[in-house]
Amino acid sequence: MKTLPLSKAFTLIEPGPVILVTTNDGQKDNIMTITWTMVLDFSASFALTTGPWNHSYAALMETKECVISLPTVDQIDTAVGIGTCSGSDTDKFEKFGLTRVKAKHVRAPLIKECLANIECRVIDTVDRYNIVILEGVAAYVDASRKEKRTIHAVGDGTFVVDGRRFDRKKMMRSKLPSGI
Amino acid sequence: MKTLPLSKAFTLIEPGPVILVTTNDGQKDNIMTITWTMVLDFSASFALTTGPWNHSYAALMETKECVISLPTVDQIDTAVGIGTCSGSDTDKFEKFGLTRVKAKHVRAPLIKECLANIECRVIDTVDRYNIVILEGVAAYVDASRKEKRTIHAVGDGTFVVDGRRFDRKKMMRSKLPSGI
Repeated sequence: MKTLPLSKAFTLIEPGPVILVTTNDGQKDNIMTITWTMVLDFSASFALTTGPWNHSYAALMETKECVISLPTVDQIDTAVGIGTCSGSDTDKFEKFGLTRVKAKHVRAPLIKECLANIECRVIDTVDRYNIVILEGVAAYVDASRKEKRTIHAVGDGTFVVDGRRFDRKKMMRSKLPSGI
Repeated sequence: MKTLPLSKAFTLIEPGPVILVTTNDGQKDNIMTITWTMVLDFSASFALTTGPWNHSYAALMETKECVISLPTVDQIDTAVGIGTCSGSDTDKFEKFGLTRVKAKHVRAPLIKECLANIECRVIDTVDRYNIVILEGVAAYVDASRKEKRTIHAVGDGTFVVDGRRFDRKKMMRSKLPSGI
């Protein structure tokens, strides 16, 4: 995995992909699938909606740390599977054949098989809307990976995969931070 | 445009599409392009990140009303164009050849040419993160429209279009609200 500058981390989340979020509660690693996310700035600040209904939530709130991992279309059944079983009775790394990679700044592990990973700290919550605010502290992309198409949840049990890409960099130039 | 039950409105936003947001400040309509959005519940509550740097923001905060409109891939240059000029000196409906449709509950107009429209009220803000909380009060989809592929901004001036759709309704059944 190659380091990605934090100034570009928002480009991993802005398209709205399904993400995996790993945590470590001091004893066990866990993973949850999250589809309600939002970019907060042109860098590495993110919001996500989650709450006590996810087993990972307690570890997330206690440790204030997690890793965001990006699955691709070939991992759709892993992402859906992780989202439909519970860390309370399942070792999801084992069940889904995923490989932990030690993170640099947080105790939650990176997922080796994913396209990208972002080490994050929880810097705030907006409890009345179950919003958790994350600040990325390190980001990585597996540039050697051939499959790069991420998955977008529709919310009705269907998922849309990345299709054709359009370049509008010239039109957008005035609106983008330099170096992007 | 056909009415969409509000219980399904979140499925328009959950995939993470580029949206257009219309406002009316009492005198003029305006439109902004927004890519930082998030679903907050399995119904019609949404968060978006915006602030005073958008001309529409003043009208949004003053009237506490807007309409979310969903452009499709054939409207990518309209969406990017709207996002790169300002309502302070431009009538964007006129410039981009868009047709206003009177909304039922809010003064901001629907956009006839879009795939879907959601009439919304601003119910709260989280000022420290420039988060605006919206509650949908009516939703519509143009079912007769052939082009239904929405656009996802990457944040670097490129955009990814909806590709293939995967059905995982059976796997997801335990996690979805009934009737979705």
